[in-house]
Amino acid sequence: MNLLLMSSSRSADSGFLEANADELAALRIRRALFIPYAIVGEDRAERVSFVSERVAELGIKLDDIDEAADPVKAIETADAVLVSGGNTFHLLATMYRNGIVDPLRARVRQGMPYVGWSAGSNVAGRSIRTTNDMPIVYPPTFRALDLVPFQINPHFTDAMPEGLRGETREQRIREFLAAHPQELVLGLPEGTALRVEGDRMRLAGRHDAWLFRAGEPRLRLAAGRDLSHLL
Amino acid sequence: MNLLLMSSSRSADSGFLEANADELAALRIRRALFIPYAIVGEDRAERVSFVSERVAELGIKLDDIDEAADPVKAIETADAVLVSGGNTFHLLATMYRNGIVDPLRARVRQGMPYVGWSAGSNVAGRSIRTTNDMPIVYPPTFRALDLVPFQINPHFTDAMPEGLRGETREQRIREFLAAHPQELVLGLPEGTALRVEGDRMRLAGRHDAWLFRAGEPRLRLAAGRDLSHLL
Repeated sequence: MNLLLMSSSRSADSGFLEANADELAALRIRRALFIPYAIVGEDRAERVSFVSERVAELGIKLDDIDEAADPVKAIETADAVLVSGGNTFHLLATMYRNGIVDPLRARVRQGMPYVGWSAGSNVAGRSIRTTNDMPIVYPPTFRALDLVPFQINPHFTDAMPEGLRGETREQRIREFLAAHPQELVLGLPEGTALRVEGDRMRLAGRHDAWLFRAGEPRLRLAAGRDLSHLL
Repeated sequence: MNLLLMSSSRSADSGFLEANADELAALRIRRALFIPYAIVGEDRAERVSFVSERVAELGIKLDDIDEAADPVKAIETADAVLVSGGNTFHLLATMYRNGIVDPLRARVRQGMPYVGWSAGSNVAGRSIRTTNDMPIVYPPTFRALDLVPFQINPHFTDAMPEGLRGETREQRIREFLAAHPQELVLGLPEGTALRVEGDRMRLAGRHDAWLFRAGEPRLRLAAGRDLSHLL
């Protein structure tokens, strides 16, 4: 497989797709099918053009799947796919409604490059059960593409909004692991990414990430570290 | 109906159930069925005892629904119910699994007092589609008790964790409204509560709250304000 799964499109110290731009360029994608199903709201068209213009600077021409007559055929004939962030529930529900989950998984497992950020990375994991998003629509299942055999938590942070008494991100992940002790969760801080090439995986970006298992303290994964054992 | 729907059990300036203790005391509940289905994790028993001890100080004796032989019968014979916070998905999924959603709705509509906080307030709304929680388990639907004809967003805040580039709470609610423009969302900051008595509703607690509608700026709801028109 050939995956680039970014935590986020932006981080505190970098602009749109900037933190992992070298990794994205190294994929040498010239044309990609864009899956914007996570983008919800009035400014949808504007956001799709923004992404198109930005990736054009990296030499990538985007085709919007929503412009295709048949989304399944579009997946079957794509050179690569880019899956944007936004709302993970809306993304997954639309992927199922348009019947692209199985064909997309099959193509990516056969080697088609897959690039995602935020919600687009979350759906590459086993399920969306560790998303941070609001469940604005009800998908037919939380099971996702299962391209990597663990759960991803994008935008991972230890920070809490000032004055708030809700749960920390780690507490939320611990609740998930209490309900599903056999699962692994990778907490990817903004600016980090997972780069999968064949049967190898490493942590890309300049920051460390975290591995959570039930009943164990979290494990720091140093920037650049090989993570192939998790595949 | 006789409802007390608290945003949270704690706030920046108050301890457990302290911010709305007067409202809770005014309900004059002596005995209540406790629904702890939102509580997930190893410290579950400890957290249930903590709640029992704290509400005992307010003169309320709790019966844990998980100690009852038949949860439906327990709902049918309860004097009042208290529904705690924790994980909203786990709460709703367990309510459906144990068959208590319809009997609980029926009893509360007949006048049985309902007290909830955080997840326990969220499920009193039309659906859980505006929860902040992680979707750790898949409920059979997002539809909830529908005791009040709008959506609740508990722990509402404008603050963002420092350094994070994810979406603000208002952006998340706006995405929900973009997908469902006919719905109303009440953003309840920590320390606030909704108090429903018969066909009247008011905002309890010392802070203001916010009403969100599609295509309109959010509306400030002043502390203490009558909100009966939203019922």
